[in-house]
Amino acid sequence: MTYCIGILLDEGAVLAADSRTNAGIDRVSTFRKMFTFEKPGERLFTLLTAGNLSLTQGVISLITEWLHSEDPERDLFAVTSMFGAARVVGQAIREIHKSDGGYLQQHDVDFSASFILCGQIKGGQLRLFMLYDAGNFIEALGETIYFQIGEVKYGKPILDRILRHDTSLTDAAKCALISFDSTMRSNVSVGPPLDLMIYRRDTLKPSFMVRLEDDDPYLQTIREKWGGALYKAFHDVIHDPGWTF
Amino acid sequence: MTYCIGILLDEGAVLAADSRTNAGIDRVSTFRKMFTFEKPGERLFTLLTAGNLSLTQGVISLITEWLHSEDPERDLFAVTSMFGAARVVGQAIREIHKSDGGYLQQHDVDFSASFILCGQIKGGQLRLFMLYDAGNFIEALGETIYFQIGEVKYGKPILDRILRHDTSLTDAAKCALISFDSTMRSNVSVGPPLDLMIYRRDTLKPSFMVRLEDDDPYLQTIREKWGGALYKAFHDVIHDPGWTF
Repeated sequence: MTYCIGILLDEGAVLAADSRTNAGIDRVSTFRKMFTFEKPGERLFTLLTAGNLSLTQGVISLITEWLHSEDPERDLFAVTSMFGAARVVGQAIREIHKSDGGYLQQHDVDFSASFILCGQIKGGQLRLFMLYDAGNFIEALGETIYFQIGEVKYGKPILDRILRHDTSLTDAAKCALISFDSTMRSNVSVGPPLDLMIYRRDTLKPSFMVRLEDDDPYLQTIREKWGGALYKAFHDVIHDPGWTF
Repeated sequence: MTYCIGILLDEGAVLAADSRTNAGIDRVSTFRKMFTFEKPGERLFTLLTAGNLSLTQGVISLITEWLHSEDPERDLFAVTSMFGAARVVGQAIREIHKSDGGYLQQHDVDFSASFILCGQIKGGQLRLFMLYDAGNFIEALGETIYFQIGEVKYGKPILDRILRHDTSLTDAAKCALISFDSTMRSNVSVGPPLDLMIYRRDTLKPSFMVRLEDDDPYLQTIREKWGGALYKAFHDVIHDPGWTF
Protein backbone atom coordinates (compact mmCIF):
# COMPACT_ATOMS: atom_id res chain seq x y z
CA MET A 1 0.00 0.00 0.00
CA THR A 2 0.97 3.65 -0.04
CA TYR A 3 0.02 6.93 1.49
CA CYS A 4 0.79 10.30 -0.12
CA ILE A 5 -0.52 13.79 0.57
CA GLY A 6 -0.23 17.04 -1.36
CA ILE A 7 -1.38 20.25 0.36
CA LEU A 8 -1.80 23.62 -1.36
CA LEU A 9 -1.67 26.70 0.90
CA ASP A 10 -1.45 30.45 0.61
CA GLU A 11 2.23 30.25 1.57
CA GLY A 12 3.09 27.32 -0.70
CA ALA A 13 2.80 23.55 -0.68
CA VAL A 14 3.61 20.57 1.52
CA LEU A 15 4.10 17.13 -0.02
CA ALA A 16 4.69 13.86 1.77
CA ALA A 17 4.96 10.20 0.83
CA ASP A 18 5.70 6.95 2.58
CA SER A 19 8.09 4.48 0.97
CA ARG A 20 6.78 1.02 1.78
CA THR A 21 5.75 -1.29 -1.03
CA ASN A 22 4.55 -4.83 -0.77
CA ALA A 23 3.81 -7.60 -3.21
CA GLY A 24 2.22 -9.92 -0.69
CA ILE A 25 3.08 -9.66 2.98
CA ASP A 26 6.32 -11.59 2.44
CA ARG A 27 7.66 -9.13 -0.15
CA VAL A 28 7.98 -5.80 1.61
CA SER A 29 10.45 -3.26 0.23
CA THR A 30 11.36 0.40 0.36
CA PHE A 31 10.89 2.48 -2.77
CA ARG A 32 10.81 6.23 -3.12
CA LYS A 33 7.38 7.54 -4.14
CA MET A 34 8.30 11.24 -4.38
CA PHE A 35 10.00 12.51 -7.51
CA THR A 36 11.06 16.03 -8.43
CA PHE A 37 11.79 17.51 -11.82
CA GLU A 38 13.30 20.95 -11.60
CA LYS A 39 15.12 23.76 -13.28
CA PRO A 40 15.94 25.86 -10.22
CA GLY A 41 14.54 29.37 -10.48
CA GLU A 42 12.59 28.42 -13.59
CA ARG A 43 10.23 25.51 -12.82
CA LEU A 44 9.66 22.80 -10.23
CA PHE A 45 7.41 19.74 -10.42
CA THR A 46 6.90 17.16 -7.70
CA LEU A 47 5.15 13.86 -8.35
CA LEU A 48 3.82 11.48 -5.70
CA THR A 49 2.90 7.99 -6.83
CA ALA A 50 0.55 5.21 -5.73
CA GLY A 51 -0.48 1.92 -7.29
CA ASN A 52 1.29 -0.95 -8.99
CA LEU A 53 5.02 -0.22 -8.66
CA SER A 54 5.92 -1.48 -12.14
CA LEU A 55 3.40 0.94 -13.61
CA THR A 56 4.31 4.00 -11.54
CA GLN A 57 8.01 3.39 -12.18
CA GLY A 58 7.19 3.06 -15.89
CA VAL A 59 5.40 6.41 -15.86
CA ILE A 60 8.29 8.13 -14.07
CA SER A 61 10.83 6.56 -16.46
CA LEU A 62 8.82 7.68 -19.47
CA ILE A 63 8.51 11.25 -18.14
CA THR A 64 12.26 11.25 -17.53
CA GLU A 65 12.99 9.97 -21.05
CA TRP A 66 10.78 12.68 -22.49
CA LEU A 67 12.70 15.46 -20.73
CA HIS A 68 14.71 17.50 -23.24
CA SER A 69 12.66 16.14 -26.14
CA GLU A 70 11.51 19.74 -26.43
CA ASP A 71 8.05 18.47 -27.37
CA PRO A 72 5.65 20.64 -25.30
CA GLU A 73 3.19 17.75 -25.21
CA ARG A 74 5.70 15.40 -23.62
CA ASP A 75 8.54 17.40 -22.09
CA LEU A 76 8.03 18.80 -18.59
CA PHE A 77 10.85 21.23 -19.27
CA ALA A 78 9.09 22.53 -22.40
CA VAL A 79 5.47 22.84 -21.24
CA THR A 80 4.28 26.41 -20.74
CA SER A 81 1.70 25.79 -18.00
CA MET A 82 0.94 23.49 -15.08
CA PHE A 83 -2.10 22.31 -17.04
CA GLY A 84 0.33 21.27 -19.77
CA ALA A 85 2.49 19.49 -17.15
CA ALA A 86 -0.52 17.53 -15.86
CA ARG A 87 -1.29 16.51 -19.43
CA VAL A 88 2.27 15.20 -19.86
CA VAL A 89 1.86 13.00 -16.80
CA GLY A 90 -1.57 11.87 -18.04
CA GLN A 91 -0.03 11.08 -21.43
CA ALA A 92 2.69 8.97 -19.77
CA ILE A 93 0.03 7.03 -17.80
CA ARG A 94 -1.85 6.36 -21.06
CA GLU A 95 1.31 5.17 -22.84
CA ILE A 96 2.04 2.72 -20.05
CA HIS A 97 -1.57 1.58 -20.13
CA LYS A 98 -1.28 1.02 -23.88
CA SER A 99 1.88 -1.04 -23.52
CA ASP A 100 1.10 -2.97 -20.31
CA GLY A 101 -2.67 -2.84 -19.66
CA GLY A 102 -3.62 -5.76 -21.90
CA TYR A 103 -0.92 -8.03 -20.50
CA LEU A 104 -1.92 -7.25 -16.92
CA GLN A 105 -5.51 -8.08 -17.79
CA GLN A 106 -4.41 -11.53 -19.01
CA HIS A 107 -3.16 -12.10 -15.46
CA ASP A 108 -6.22 -10.53 -13.78
CA VAL A 109 -4.09 -7.67 -12.47
CA ASP A 110 -5.81 -4.29 -12.33
CA PHE A 111 -4.13 -1.33 -13.95
CA SER A 112 -3.66 0.91 -10.94
CA ALA A 113 -1.51 4.04 -11.02
CA SER A 114 -2.48 7.35 -9.46
CA PHE A 115 -0.41 10.46 -8.98
CA ILE A 116 -0.35 13.79 -7.22
CA LEU A 117 1.38 16.53 -9.21
CA CYS A 118 2.34 19.83 -7.63
CA GLY A 119 4.42 22.50 -9.25
CA GLN A 120 5.00 25.98 -10.49
CA ILE A 121 6.45 27.49 -13.66
CA LYS A 122 7.97 30.97 -13.55
CA GLY A 123 5.27 33.57 -14.18
CA GLY A 124 2.50 31.07 -13.44
CA GLN A 125 0.61 29.94 -10.36
CA LEU A 126 1.50 27.13 -7.97
CA ARG A 127 -1.03 24.37 -8.78
CA LEU A 128 -1.92 20.94 -7.42
CA PHE A 129 -3.42 18.06 -9.42
CA MET A 130 -4.49 14.49 -8.83
CA LEU A 131 -4.27 12.07 -11.78
CA TYR A 132 -6.19 8.83 -12.16
CA ASP A 133 -5.50 5.48 -13.85
CA ALA A 134 -7.02 6.73 -17.09
CA GLY A 135 -4.68 9.71 -17.26
CA ASN A 136 -7.48 12.16 -16.53
CA PHE A 137 -7.02 14.59 -13.67
CA ILE A 138 -8.60 17.07 -11.30
CA GLU A 139 -7.15 20.22 -9.77
CA ALA A 140 -7.32 21.51 -6.19
CA LEU A 141 -9.49 24.62 -6.42
CA GLY A 142 -11.61 26.64 -4.00
CA GLU A 143 -12.36 24.74 -0.82
CA THR A 144 -10.26 21.71 -1.82
CA ILE A 145 -6.75 22.33 -0.61
CA TYR A 146 -5.33 18.83 -0.42
CA PHE A 147 -5.28 15.54 -2.28
CA GLN A 148 -4.44 12.11 -0.92
CA ILE A 149 -3.66 8.87 -2.78
CA GLY A 150 -3.32 5.30 -1.50
CA GLU A 151 -4.56 4.49 2.02
CA VAL A 152 -6.43 7.77 2.44
CA LYS A 153 -9.07 7.24 5.11
CA TYR A 154 -7.36 6.78 8.47
CA GLY A 155 -5.41 10.02 8.12
CA LYS A 156 -8.19 12.18 6.69
CA PRO A 157 -10.03 13.37 9.84
CA ILE A 158 -7.02 15.27 11.21
CA LEU A 159 -6.43 16.99 7.85
CA ASP A 160 -10.07 18.13 7.76
CA ARG A 161 -9.83 19.53 11.28
CA ILE A 162 -6.60 21.48 10.90
CA LEU A 163 -5.91 22.54 7.33
CA ARG A 164 -7.10 25.90 6.02
CA HIS A 165 -5.82 28.04 3.14
CA ASP A 166 -3.92 30.19 5.62
CA THR A 167 -2.36 27.33 7.63
CA SER A 168 1.41 27.89 7.83
CA LEU A 169 3.76 25.59 5.95
CA THR A 170 5.21 24.36 9.25
CA ASP A 171 1.76 23.56 10.68
CA ALA A 172 0.75 21.81 7.48
CA ALA A 173 3.91 19.67 7.57
CA LYS A 174 3.22 18.82 11.21
CA CYS A 175 -0.40 17.98 10.36
CA ALA A 176 0.71 15.78 7.46
CA LEU A 177 3.01 13.84 9.79
CA ILE A 178 0.22 13.31 12.35
CA SER A 179 -1.95 12.08 9.48
CA PHE A 180 0.84 9.64 8.55
CA ASP A 181 1.15 8.53 12.17
CA SER A 182 -2.57 7.61 12.31
CA THR A 183 -2.30 5.81 8.98
CA MET A 184 0.85 3.85 9.83
CA ARG A 185 -0.67 2.84 13.14
CA SER A 186 -3.70 1.33 11.37
CA ASN A 187 -2.12 -0.10 8.20
CA VAL A 188 1.27 -1.80 8.43
CA SER A 189 1.64 -1.65 4.66
CA VAL A 190 2.20 2.10 4.96
CA GLY A 191 5.59 2.77 6.53
CA PRO A 192 8.71 4.88 6.91
CA PRO A 193 10.99 6.32 5.79
CA LEU A 194 8.76 9.27 4.92
CA ASP A 195 9.77 11.80 2.29
CA LEU A 196 8.60 15.33 2.98
CA MET A 197 8.99 18.46 0.92
CA ILE A 198 8.04 22.02 1.76
CA TYR A 199 7.79 24.52 -1.08
CA ARG A 200 7.46 28.25 -0.52
CA ARG A 201 5.40 29.82 -3.29
CA ASP A 202 7.29 31.59 -6.10
CA THR A 203 10.74 30.36 -5.03
CA LEU A 204 10.86 27.79 -7.87
CA LYS A 205 13.09 25.39 -5.94
CA PRO A 206 12.41 23.04 -3.00
CA SER A 207 12.48 25.08 0.21
CA PHE A 208 13.02 22.08 2.47
CA MET A 209 13.35 18.34 1.86
CA VAL A 210 13.82 15.64 4.42
CA ARG A 211 13.68 11.87 4.62
CA LEU A 212 12.38 10.84 8.04
CA GLU A 213 13.50 7.40 9.14
CA ASP A 214 11.51 5.28 11.59
CA ASP A 215 13.68 6.45 14.51
CA ASP A 216 13.48 10.13 13.61
CA PRO A 217 13.04 12.05 16.90
CA TYR A 218 10.19 14.19 15.59
CA LEU A 219 8.25 11.17 14.28
CA GLN A 220 8.85 9.54 17.65
CA THR A 221 7.51 12.62 19.45
CA ILE A 222 4.31 12.47 17.41
CA ARG A 223 4.00 8.72 17.95
CA GLU A 224 4.37 9.12 21.71
CA LYS A 225 2.51 12.35 22.33
CA TRP A 226 -0.41 12.47 19.90
CA GLY A 227 -2.25 9.59 21.54
CA GLY A 228 -1.92 11.32 24.90
CA ALA A 229 -3.04 14.61 23.36
CA LEU A 230 -6.20 12.99 22.01
CA TYR A 231 -6.80 11.28 25.34
CA LYS A 232 -6.54 14.61 27.14
CA ALA A 233 -8.80 16.37 24.62
CA PHE A 234 -11.28 13.51 24.95
CA HIS A 235 -11.51 13.97 28.72
CA ASP A 236 -11.08 17.74 29.02
CA VAL A 237 -13.13 19.12 26.15
CA ILE A 238 -16.14 16.85 25.61
CA HIS A 239 -18.32 16.51 28.69
CA ASP A 240 -19.95 13.19 29.52
CA PRO A 241 -23.36 12.56 27.96
CA GLY A 242 -24.82 12.44 31.47
CA TRP A 243 -26.90 9.34 30.79
CA THR A 244 -27.91 7.31 33.82
CA PHE A 245 -28.11 3.56 33.56
CA MET B 1 -23.01 2.70 3.37
CA THR B 2 -23.12 1.90 7.05
CA TYR B 3 -21.05 2.28 10.16
CA CYS B 4 -21.49 0.04 13.22
CA ILE B 5 -19.28 -0.54 16.27
CA GLY B 6 -19.38 -3.15 19.01
CA ILE B 7 -17.10 -2.65 22.03
CA LEU B 8 -16.44 -5.25 24.74
CA LEU B 9 -15.25 -3.91 28.11
CA ASP B 10 -14.69 -5.13 31.63
CA GLU B 11 -17.88 -3.35 32.68
CA GLY B 12 -19.98 -4.52 29.73
CA ALA B 13 -20.55 -3.57 26.12
CA VAL B 14 -21.34 -0.53 23.99
CA LEU B 15 -23.00 -0.95 20.59
CA ALA B 16 -23.77 1.72 18.04
CA ALA B 17 -25.12 1.86 14.50
CA ASP B 18 -26.04 4.54 12.02
CA SER B 19 -29.28 4.22 10.06
CA ARG B 20 -28.59 5.61 6.61
CA THR B 21 -28.95 3.36 3.59
CA ASN B 22 -28.54 4.26 -0.02
CA ALA B 23 -29.16 2.55 -3.30
CA GLY B 24 -27.47 5.16 -5.44
CA ILE B 25 -27.17 8.73 -4.24
CA ASP B 26 -30.77 9.46 -5.22
CA ARG B 27 -32.22 6.67 -3.06
CA VAL B 28 -31.28 7.52 0.50
CA SER B 29 -33.41 6.12 3.33
CA THR B 30 -33.39 5.47 7.05
CA PHE B 31 -33.39 1.88 8.27
CA ARG B 32 -32.58 0.54 11.68
CA LYS B 33 -29.39 -1.54 11.73
CA MET B 34 -29.47 -2.52 15.40
CA PHE B 35 -31.67 -5.42 16.47
CA THR B 36 -32.15 -6.97 19.88
CA PHE B 37 -33.47 -10.39 20.82
CA GLU B 38 -34.05 -10.73 24.53
CA LYS B 39 -35.59 -12.65 27.36
CA PRO B 40 -35.01 -10.17 30.17
CA GLY B 41 -32.98 -11.67 33.00
CA GLU B 42 -32.28 -14.75 30.93
CA ARG B 43 -30.52 -13.78 27.69
CA LEU B 44 -29.86 -10.78 25.50
CA PHE B 45 -28.50 -10.66 21.94
CA THR B 46 -27.81 -7.53 19.91
CA LEU B 47 -27.11 -7.65 16.19
CA LEU B 48 -25.64 -4.84 14.10
CA THR B 49 -25.89 -5.17 10.33
CA ALA B 50 -23.99 -3.93 7.29
CA GLY B 51 -24.22 -4.78 3.61
CA ASN B 52 -26.99 -5.20 1.07
CA LEU B 53 -30.22 -4.24 2.89
CA SER B 54 -32.34 -6.97 1.27
CA LEU B 55 -29.86 -9.57 2.53
CA THR B 56 -29.44 -8.22 6.07
CA GLN B 57 -33.20 -7.82 6.43
CA GLY B 58 -33.58 -11.37 5.16
CA VAL B 59 -31.16 -12.65 7.78
CA ILE B 60 -32.96 -10.79 10.57
CA SER B 61 -36.35 -12.06 9.35
CA LEU B 62 -35.09 -15.62 9.24
CA ILE B 63 -33.63 -15.40 12.76
CA THR B 64 -36.95 -13.96 13.96
CA GLU B 65 -38.91 -16.76 12.27
CA TRP B 66 -36.65 -19.32 13.90
CA LEU B 67 -37.35 -17.99 17.41
CA HIS B 68 -39.47 -20.44 19.41
CA SER B 69 -38.71 -23.25 16.97
CA GLU B 70 -36.88 -24.75 19.94
CA ASP B 71 -34.22 -26.05 17.58
CA PRO B 72 -30.90 -25.23 19.33
CA GLU B 73 -29.24 -24.92 15.94
CA ARG B 74 -31.66 -22.25 14.76
CA ASP B 75 -33.41 -20.71 17.76
CA LEU B 76 -31.62 -17.90 19.61
CA PHE B 77 -33.90 -18.57 22.57
CA ALA B 78 -32.87 -22.23 22.66
CA VAL B 79 -29.09 -22.04 22.17
CA THR B 80 -27.05 -22.78 25.26
CA SER B 81 -23.97 -20.64 24.49
CA MET B 82 -22.95 -17.46 22.69
CA PHE B 83 -20.95 -19.65 20.32
CA GLY B 84 -24.22 -21.39 19.50
CA ALA B 85 -25.89 -18.00 18.97
CA ALA B 86 -23.15 -16.94 16.54
CA ARG B 87 -23.69 -20.19 14.65
CA VAL B 88 -27.40 -19.45 14.35
CA VAL B 89 -26.64 -16.08 12.77
CA GLY B 90 -24.06 -17.72 10.49
CA GLN B 91 -26.64 -20.34 9.50
CA ALA B 92 -29.17 -17.63 8.64
CA ILE B 93 -26.57 -15.86 6.46
CA ARG B 94 -25.89 -19.15 4.65
CA GLU B 95 -29.61 -19.81 4.08
CA ILE B 96 -30.06 -16.37 2.54
CA HIS B 97 -26.96 -16.95 0.43
CA LYS B 98 -28.42 -20.25 -0.75
CA SER B 99 -31.73 -18.67 -1.71
CA ASP B 100 -30.51 -15.31 -3.12
CA GLY B 101 -26.80 -15.60 -3.94
CA GLY B 102 -27.19 -17.12 -7.39
CA TYR B 103 -29.83 -14.61 -8.49
CA LEU B 104 -27.70 -11.68 -7.32
CA GLN B 105 -24.79 -13.08 -9.30
CA GLN B 106 -26.93 -13.07 -12.45
CA HIS B 107 -27.20 -9.30 -11.94
CA ASP B 108 -23.53 -8.83 -11.01
CA VAL B 109 -24.48 -7.89 -7.46
CA ASP B 110 -22.08 -9.03 -4.75
CA PHE B 111 -23.46 -10.97 -1.83
CA SER B 112 -22.53 -8.62 1.01
CA ALA B 113 -23.86 -9.04 4.54
CA SER B 114 -21.78 -8.68 7.67
CA PHE B 115 -22.85 -8.60 11.28
CA ILE B 116 -21.67 -7.82 14.77
CA LEU B 117 -23.23 -10.01 17.44
CA CYS B 118 -22.94 -9.21 21.12
CA GLY B 119 -24.74 -10.95 23.92
CA GLN B 120 -24.87 -12.93 27.09
CA ILE B 121 -26.80 -15.96 28.30
CA LYS B 122 -27.40 -16.43 32.02
CA GLY B 123 -24.47 -18.32 33.54
CA GLY B 124 -22.24 -17.58 30.55
CA GLN B 125 -19.84 -14.82 29.56
CA LEU B 126 -20.63 -11.64 27.66
CA ARG B 127 -19.13 -12.23 24.20
CA LEU B 128 -18.66 -10.25 20.99
CA PHE B 129 -18.48 -11.70 17.46
CA MET B 130 -18.11 -10.44 13.92
CA LEU B 131 -19.71 -12.50 11.14
CA TYR B 132 -18.75 -12.43 7.47
CA ASP B 133 -20.64 -12.99 4.20
CA ALA B 134 -19.85 -16.69 4.29
CA GLY B 135 -21.43 -17.13 7.72
CA ASN B 136 -18.05 -17.70 9.37
CA PHE B 137 -17.13 -15.55 12.33
CA ILE B 138 -14.43 -14.35 14.68
CA GLU B 139 -14.61 -13.43 18.35
CA ALA B 140 -13.14 -10.46 20.22
CA LEU B 141 -10.49 -11.98 22.48
CA GLY B 142 -7.39 -10.70 24.23
CA GLU B 143 -6.19 -7.40 22.86
CA THR B 144 -9.10 -7.06 20.44
CA ILE B 145 -11.90 -5.30 22.25
CA TYR B 146 -13.96 -3.88 19.41
CA PHE B 147 -15.27 -4.75 15.97
CA GLN B 148 -16.43 -2.39 13.27
CA ILE B 149 -18.41 -3.09 10.09
CA GLY B 150 -19.16 -0.86 7.10
CA GLU B 151 -17.18 2.37 6.67
CA VAL B 152 -14.59 1.49 9.29
CA LYS B 153 -11.48 3.54 8.58
CA TYR B 154 -12.22 7.21 9.30
CA GLY B 155 -13.40 6.45 12.82
CA LYS B 156 -10.75 3.90 13.77
CA PRO B 157 -7.86 6.12 14.98
CA ILE B 158 -9.86 7.58 17.90
CA LEU B 159 -10.98 4.10 19.01
CA ASP B 160 -7.36 2.90 19.03
CA ARG B 161 -6.25 5.89 21.09
CA ILE B 162 -8.95 5.73 23.77
CA LEU B 163 -10.37 2.25 24.26
CA ARG B 164 -8.88 -0.13 26.82
CA HIS B 165 -10.42 -3.10 28.64
CA ASP B 166 -11.01 -0.90 31.67
CA THR B 167 -12.52 2.06 29.83
CA SER B 168 -15.85 2.95 31.47
CA LEU B 169 -19.10 2.33 29.61
CA THR B 170 -19.77 6.07 29.53
CA ASP B 171 -16.33 6.86 28.08
CA ALA B 172 -16.69 4.09 25.51
CA ALA B 173 -20.08 5.45 24.43
CA LYS B 174 -18.59 8.93 24.14
CA CYS B 175 -15.64 7.54 22.15
CA ALA B 176 -18.01 5.66 19.83
CA LEU B 177 -19.92 8.87 19.14
CA ILE B 178 -16.71 10.79 18.34
CA SER B 179 -15.78 7.94 16.00
CA PHE B 180 -19.19 8.34 14.33
CA ASP B 181 -18.69 12.10 14.09
CA SER B 182 -15.39 11.64 12.21
CA THR B 183 -17.00 9.05 9.93
CA MET B 184 -20.13 11.08 9.17
CA ARG B 185 -17.98 14.11 8.43
CA SER B 186 -16.02 12.17 5.81
CA ASN B 187 -18.70 9.93 4.29
CA VAL B 188 -22.18 11.36 3.71
CA SER B 189 -23.58 7.86 3.20
CA VAL B 190 -23.18 7.30 6.96
CA GLY B 191 -25.73 9.36 8.86
CA PRO B 192 -28.07 9.84 11.80
CA PRO B 193 -30.20 8.91 13.57
CA LEU B 194 -27.69 6.82 15.52
CA ASP B 195 -28.82 3.90 17.67
CA LEU B 196 -26.75 3.35 20.78
CA MET B 197 -27.01 0.67 23.43
CA ILE B 198 -25.08 0.31 26.66
CA TYR B 199 -25.10 -3.07 28.37
CA ARG B 200 -23.80 -3.62 31.89
CA ARG B 201 -22.30 -7.10 32.22
CA ASP B 202 -24.48 -9.78 33.88
CA THR B 203 -27.66 -7.66 33.91
CA LEU B 204 -29.18 -9.62 30.99
CA LYS B 205 -31.23 -6.67 29.76
CA PRO B 206 -30.29 -3.45 27.93
CA SER B 207 -28.98 -0.96 30.49
CA PHE B 208 -29.49 2.07 28.28
CA MET B 209 -30.81 2.55 24.75
CA VAL B 210 -31.14 5.78 22.84
CA ARG B 211 -31.79 6.94 19.29
CA LEU B 212 -29.82 10.13 18.64
CA GLU B 213 -31.32 12.34 15.96
CA ASP B 214 -29.23 14.74 13.89
CA ASP B 215 -30.16 17.66 16.16
CA ASP B 216 -29.41 15.80 19.40
CA PRO B 217 -27.64 18.27 21.71
CA TYR B 218 -24.87 15.82 22.65
CA LEU B 219 -24.12 14.97 19.00
CA GLN B 220 -24.07 18.69 18.32
CA THR B 221 -21.62 19.25 21.18
CA ILE B 222 -19.27 16.67 19.72
CA ARG B 223 -19.65 18.10 16.23
CA GLU B 224 -18.84 21.61 17.45
CA LYS B 225 -16.19 20.92 20.07
CA TRP B 226 -14.16 17.95 18.87
CA GLY B 227 -12.62 19.86 15.97
CA GLY B 228 -11.57 22.62 18.37
CA ALA B 229 -10.23 20.04 20.81
CA LEU B 230 -8.04 18.49 18.11
CA TYR B 231 -6.91 21.94 17.01
CA LYS B 232 -5.88 22.80 20.56
CA ALA B 233 -4.11 19.46 21.06
CA PHE B 234 -2.35 19.99 17.75
CA HIS B 235 -0.96 23.35 18.86
CA ASP B 236 -0.43 22.72 22.56
CA VAL B 237 0.98 19.21 22.71
CA ILE B 238 3.13 18.62 19.63
CA HIS B 239 5.96 21.12 19.28
CA ASP B 240 6.96 22.43 15.84
CA PRO B 241 9.56 20.37 14.00
CA GLY B 242 11.90 23.38 14.16
CA TRP B 243 12.95 23.10 10.53
CA THR B 244 14.29 26.27 8.95
CA PHE B 245 13.56 26.95 5.32
